[in-house]
Amino acid sequence: MTAVEIQQIRRKLPEWVAASVPFAEGGKVASYIPELAGAPHDALGITLINADGDLITEGSCGRRFTVQSISKLFTLILALMDIGEDRVFEKVGMEPTGDNFNSVLKLELVRPGIPFNPLINAGAITVSALIRGSDPEEKTERILQFMRALANNDHLRVDLDVYRSEADTGNLNRSIAYLLKQNKVLDGDVEEVLDVYFRHCSIAVDCADLARMGLVLACNGTDPLTGKSLIPRRYVQIAKTFMTTCGMYNASGEFAIQVGLPAKSGVSGGILSLVPGRYGIGVYGPALNNKGNSQAGVHLLEIMSRELNWSMF
Amino acid sequence: MTAVEIQQIRRKLPEWVAASVPFAEGGKVASYIPELAGAPHDALGITLINADGDLITEGSCGRRFTVQSISKLFTLILALMDIGEDRVFEKVGMEPTGDNFNSVLKLELVRPGIPFNPLINAGAITVSALIRGSDPEEKTERILQFMRALANNDHLRVDLDVYRSEADTGNLNRSIAYLLKQNKVLDGDVEEVLDVYFRHCSIAVDCADLARMGLVLACNGTDPLTGKSLIPRRYVQIAKTFMTTCGMYNASGEFAIQVGLPAKSGVSGGILSLVPGRYGIGVYGPALNNKGNSQAGVHLLEIMSRELNWSMF
Amino acid sequence: MTAVEIQQIRRKLPEWVAASVPFAEGGKVASYIPELAGAPHDALGITLINADGDLITEGSCGRRFTVQSISKLFTLILALMDIGEDRVFEKVGMEPTGDNFNSVLKLELVRPGIPFNPLINAGAITVSALIRGSDPEEKTERILQFMRALANNDHLRVDLDVYRSEADTGNLNRSIAYLLKQNKVLDGDVEEVLDVYFRHCSIAVDCADLARMGLVLACNGTDPLTGKSLIPRRYVQIAKTFMTTCGMYNASGEFAIQVGLPAKSGVSGGILSLVPGRYGIGVYGPALNNKGNSQAGVHLLEIMSRELNWSMF
Amino acid sequence: MTAVEIQQIRRKLPEWVAASVPFAEGGKVASYIPELAGAPHDALGITLINADGDLITEGSCGRRFTVQSISKLFTLILALMDIGEDRVFEKVGMEPTGDNFNSVLKLELVRPGIPFNPLINAGAITVSALIRGSDPEEKTERILQFMRALANNDHLRVDLDVYRSEADTGNLNRSIAYLLKQNKVLDGDVEEVLDVYFRHCSIAVDCADLARMGLVLACNGTDPLTGKSLIPRRYVQIAKTFMTTCGMYNASGEFAIQVGLPAKSGVSGGILSLVPGRYGIGVYGPALNNKGNSQAGVHLLEIMSRELNWSMF
Repeated sequence: MTAVEIQQIRRKLPEWVAASVPFAEGGKVASYIPELAGAPHDALGITLINADGDLITEGSCGRRFTVQSISKLFTLILALMDIGEDRVFEKVGMEPTGDNFNSVLKLELVRPGIPFNPLINAGAITVSALIRGSDPEEKTERILQFMRALANNDHLRVDLDVYRSEADTGNLNRSIAYLLKQNKVLDGDVEEVLDVYFRHCSIAVDCADLARMGLVLACNGTDPLTGKSLIPRRYVQIAKTFMTTCGMYNASGEFAIQVGLPAKSGVSGGILSLVPGRYGIGVYGPALNNKGNSQAGVHLLEIMSRELNWSMF
Repeated sequence: MTAVEIQQIRRKLPEWVAASVPFAEGGKVASYIPELAGAPHDALGITLINADGDLITEGSCGRRFTVQSISKLFTLILALMDIGEDRVFEKVGMEPTGDNFNSVLKLELVRPGIPFNPLINAGAITVSALIRGSDPEEKTERILQFMRALANNDHLRVDLDVYRSEADTGNLNRSIAYLLKQNKVLDGDVEEVLDVYFRHCSIAVDCADLARMGLVLACNGTDPLTGKSLIPRRYVQIAKTFMTTCGMYNASGEFAIQVGLPAKSGVSGGILSLVPGRYGIGVYGPALNNKGNSQAGVHLLEIMSRELNWSMF
Repeated sequence: MTAVEIQQIRRKLPEWVAASVPFAEGGKVASYIPELAGAPHDALGITLINADGDLITEGSCGRRFTVQSISKLFTLILALMDIGEDRVFEKVGMEPTGDNFNSVLKLELVRPGIPFNPLINAGAITVSALIRGSDPEEKTERILQFMRALANNDHLRVDLDVYRSEADTGNLNRSIAYLLKQNKVLDGDVEEVLDVYFRHCSIAVDCADLARMGLVLACNGTDPLTGKSLIPRRYVQIAKTFMTTCGMYNASGEFAIQVGLPAKSGVSGGILSLVPGRYGIGVYGPALNNKGNSQAGVHLLEIMSRELNWSMF
Repeated sequence: MTAVEIQQIRRKLPEWVAASVPFAEGGKVASYIPELAGAPHDALGITLINADGDLITEGSCGRRFTVQSISKLFTLILALMDIGEDRVFEKVGMEPTGDNFNSVLKLELVRPGIPFNPLINAGAITVSALIRGSDPEEKTERILQFMRALANNDHLRVDLDVYRSEADTGNLNRSIAYLLKQNKVLDGDVEEVLDVYFRHCSIAVDCADLARMGLVLACNGTDPLTGKSLIPRRYVQIAKTFMTTCGMYNASGEFAIQVGLPAKSGVSGGILSLVPGRYGIGVYGPALNNKGNSQAGVHLLEIMSRELNWSMF
């Protein structure tokens, strides 16, 4: 059946991508830093990879882009691997917020003021502080090594221009971080924590990298192409659950209804998704909808899920 | 494998229930109406039924209780069957809120002021107005018939004492309903809509009824024991997705992490859950945690999901 | 000095009114009911009366309009006279909210959920329930008699068309009232309380009526022209304080800085203001700014306060 | 009359202070830094000074304490003198918030995200950035010189221990400041602005200093004892208006009803108040109520206002 499906995907994907590209029109490329603002508005690319190593790619997949919020997934997993469930969930909750990903409301309104989940900015900043390492460089290096292993790509690196722009303009994240420090959620030096955060958000990837990382999650933590066991099963489960309930910012509920797959998006226009047990998927489409997700990318995944009956539900 | 699992469940369930009962201690039975306040604090019962008709029951399953919020699931499905996806989702969104199930905040703060999802009170009231029927009696009768068909139980009926108490004390729901009317989300007479709402929340069931209804959802809309097709596949998918993202009030995220099954709870202490393709599950445990879910019931489902590896994720 | 000032006002007022009329342009006439929507967009009138009975009138003062929120002032005073400070302030607070006058946020967010002050809708609805009287008619009649005495005008009456339209469209106020009932702030039948509220908001006045009522407040509760003592000094003090801190909705702070006089506005475009010890002032200008106050009317009062050095501060 | 009143005050003040001291019991001394936590819980002192130089002092007036939020008044006035009304009110509004003085809610919820008024933390931080000076030292020095002139006391200085503790623990203020920077309200280096803010909050005074500064405001900007004109009339008016609408945090409305005088409090337990044209008043009582104002101090001012008929309203 998989072989049949792959043929179907190969045959239909150009048409599905073509049908999705026009949806970029209503979206907006993130413009708060010049490195993102320069992305091509109507680009759309997708790469799928399965456990047999079949790789399908369509559209503008050549371009590299920074992972942005997609890294929140991997810092979460690494923190779980570093210090375990109990200690991570003392500092960060498990609930969707219904608010924007960079909102401070619930940090003030809902006691004890810990972030609702690890995929909003407040949660991801908190998680960044939990990564083992003696200084920001070591922490960042460990995150980078982890993502390289998952992507099976030793060339992943931090885009330093993006990193510097993020650090320069990241005042809302600074505000969130100091509020977390006030709430006794964040220990240590705020600028050091943010440094780790800005760096891992600035790791550059392409669609194939995302697809390969997604494949490891789809296969419960083992890279089926190398046989390496990279993540304990339980932490993959946690990650996939958060991807389903919180992965697409405050449009996660709609994505679950319309696509029904675990996914994590970033404001660069990237989406890492997966079909459990079968595919890792990387999407790139920089024009964002008003929730911060790739407009054309989400549309493409909606078509594919509907046509291929991919929803988990 | 299923037969083996059923044997395991039969053997272990008494122990799991016994281990969960003490968790009722920290919870509180809903007390806003006398009919709920009288429930036994430390009761805990569970019924499972599978596609072969194997039925497992343990603990205090004899008691009948009102469905309360669990009916929100069936009014949603019936509204989808009555008027289709497009018209339902004009009036109600698809997102978890992060707020209490009876909050009015987002109705004021987030334009255009439609309920975030159909499983919070605002959403369920809105959906109640979408059910076909010339008057509240006919609408309620249609909901009741639908639930009777799903439970394969013609004896389901509205508990009139509970209904009258709900109607008498339901001022927060009235407040929500008038705010919805102000926001042009709710058409028609508010008290008539609320009458439907209070009635369907007051339908009395037992664990076996919930389990049987859950089984239909687990089997994608067809009752495997009668062969009757009761709900179109797509609407089951929508329902299961909402159960996963919003079914346990603002503890849905944690439930997804710790249990990983679609579920819907009510303040009477009932939980309807399911293992896709395999089991319908009804739980009853009236002592609630601070999010409004059965304290012992959630604990029991956590044990079972962990021991039996039931998480969808 | 007063005589000199009156001459100055008579001489300059036409010019000040003319300078203020253009400010109506940016405003919007309230349009939620037809009776308000029909008001002339660029009308602006003002009447001043002093303790000697000198009356100055300029602009479009002939028109009658409903008091709307201005009545909140008189129901507050009447409730204080009926049941005293202690019992009134058990039910309603003394703080500005910073939110819109019809907001429900703080009723949910700030325990114990009593209205922050008597001049927002929630507070005025609460106060309406405190007025003595065996039924809505008697309560309304008592409010009407009180306002007739203050205006020295037996012809004040409820505009029944406006009342009916308010009652028909007042769903946000219904929502607020049921939330108050839920919070145990409001006793009794919600629709009966709202009936009183909608009726007293619909009492029709003209600028001269407002000015005369303002004069009584300016003279600490005694009508200087009849010598009648109508309000105890302390309750006038309370009323004038609320007018200063909360009288102009959530633009009260700015009004205090720019005008510095006690005032209360209504969405019909009326403003009742006063210069302590000296003048009662009635203004009418139906085009409202985005906070719900008469755009041209506020501008006119700003000019007069600045030119005549009227600020209390 | 003034002479008679002064005699009355001298005669009755010991009794009024004694009657107010017990109210300290229910309050709490601010404890977020050791320098504040060490204040004597049941201390209560008051100093009044009038335009003739009559000075009345009662209770524990010997102690020095830091001005904390009271300095917000003087930075506002100095900013007005430095750059004028128009430029100040581009950056900060004129409205009470109804929220805690250190809330971030409205900075996120209410566009364009400028602070509602200059007496909440967000507003005072914003204003601190508007003070002229080439660096934090010069700005602080100018504020200090201004307060010295108003207090007629060249010995006022920054308490460096308090300043360092404030700077060490001020993460909520850092959070607010970075949110302001994000909202483009705050220009320049955040830590430099906060340095000015923490320093001026740490200026040490005693009751007599506060009373003398209050006297200048009571006399419209001129020190009646030296004849020096220190503040333009209009800026005193602005300051007194803000003191009335926003000076006692989110208990300003109640203070206006119960006392009716312009006042500004600080979490050290100080209150600067005034009777327009007549007295400057300094109060010290470190046990705070739940809104952050001196519990016994507010009670003392309530007695005095009632007994001496001091309310402006």
